[in-house]
Amino acid sequence: MKPKLSIVKAGGALINDGCKLYAFLRDFANLPGDKILIHGGGEKATELGQRLGVPTRMHDGRRITSAETLELVVQVYAGLINKNLVALLQSHGCNALGLSGADGDVIRAVKRSVKDIDYGFVGDIQTVRAELVEHFLESGAVPVFCAVTHDGQGQLLNTNADTIAAEIAIAMAASYEVSLLYCFTQKAVMLDIEDPASSIGLLDEKTYNDLRRRGIIDKGMIPKLDNCFRALRNGVHRIKIGDGEEMLSGNRDSKATTICL
Amino acid sequence: MKPKLSIVKAGGALINDGCKLYAFLRDFANLPGDKILIHGGGEKATELGQRLGVPTRMHDGRRITSAETLELVVQVYAGLINKNLVALLQSHGCNALGLSGADGDVIRAVKRSVKDIDYGFVGDIQTVRAELVEHFLESGAVPVFCAVTHDGQGQLLNTNADTIAAEIAIAMAASYEVSLLYCFTQKAVMLDIEDPASSIGLLDEKTYNDLRRRGIIDKGMIPKLDNCFRALRNGVHRIKIGDGEEMLSGNRDSKATTICL
Repeated sequence: MKPKLSIVKAGGALINDGCKLYAFLRDFANLPGDKILIHGGGEKATELGQRLGVPTRMHDGRRITSAETLELVVQVYAGLINKNLVALLQSHGCNALGLSGADGDVIRAVKRSVKDIDYGFVGDIQTVRAELVEHFLESGAVPVFCAVTHDGQGQLLNTNADTIAAEIAIAMAASYEVSLLYCFTQKAVMLDIEDPASSIGLLDEKTYNDLRRRGIIDKGMIPKLDNCFRALRNGVHRIKIGDGEEMLSGNRDSKATTICL
Repeated sequence: MKPKLSIVKAGGALINDGCKLYAFLRDFANLPGDKILIHGGGEKATELGQRLGVPTRMHDGRRITSAETLELVVQVYAGLINKNLVALLQSHGCNALGLSGADGDVIRAVKRSVKDIDYGFVGDIQTVRAELVEHFLESGAVPVFCAVTHDGQGQLLNTNADTIAAEIAIAMAASYEVSLLYCFTQKAVMLDIEDPASSIGLLDEKTYNDLRRRGIIDKGMIPKLDNCFRALRNGVHRIKIGDGEEMLSGNRDSKATTICL
């Protein structure tokens, strides 16, 4: 039987809310067994950009990454947020080890080629060195990944944190029974974002495609869910999307959405 | 016989000079055997501070670290500089692993108590987890440390990079024959900074104390050299101070100063 591994993605809004973040990190630290944290942090980069006069440009919810924006992203994601999360987890007795994809060459990506849109210094993942992540886990460390990768030629790249979570989950699935938990500020994937009673308990690919066609699931949820189905098709055992505190504390009444094929 | 370990400290001026940095990283990547890099990066933090309107305050060459300055320091040292160095080393085939002292709880420090001067969020090192650094080295990784530590209570701290280099060297000396190389922009410790012919080949503690008393060695060189003698008294095998390119390329004509007791 494979050992269990929890891979938890914490969204930017969770990272930016001090109160929620405290509870989330405490619960993450208490999660039994091997675990990995992946974090976003978009708002803080936008905020620093405003202070420095670097404009934020988005396309379909994805950040267009100029050389100046990449500097911001690396500073904020790999520096400010990653190291503060690591220090806070350490204070909860969790031996966090902060990583970008460049560290140990763990995640190598390729700069996205220009088609209709030039995303700039955005990286699409090519390889994840699962054996090194496994080595870190075996040493008792808890890897904490920010959304920065590299191309192996000296160039750092901005990579979507949801995608990093899914790709790490897929790479680790060869040796572990992987649960992938996407924590965000909603309780679940919703049919109607205004109606708390409309949360989806179980979402399979057929229903997803149907809801997507009808425009009920749209925007940022589409790449997130595409990542989920891709991960399930590639050996990831279990995927949930919902409120971080509810999911991590093992709350039986959690309304989180379970994704299945 | 203990295995050899090279610990190299790269000064801020070297980090800020693209041309010198390229040659330095290439030579560091080619250095045979186990190795560790420690980097400063003061000027870039000062530069970002100016853009953001955060004033830089120094006392005896040490940065006074307000909460705002700490944010800058963490962003620039642990984010921008550390991750770019890691990515550049990876492009030279060196499997760099970027670390702050909080990562893996490798370097724990205590906030400096206020005496005459309140240095703010500055940390004095208490413990170095040599066994984890050894574990990284055994996995084939090359640790790259920035000048950020933590207190174990969730607080990041700014710690002098020369001191980090010396403390890591001391901690590793139990298992390795450690060479500690302080790379800066001068060729050596000089009797007269204006006279290139005045470089000191061999500097022992007695001579140092004498030169210091006479005011010939002063300012930033004093804590650097104090660190060196402390490291030699605590088991570090060999210490040199000088030009990075000359020392790393094993140039026999290197004018670098060798420190000895």
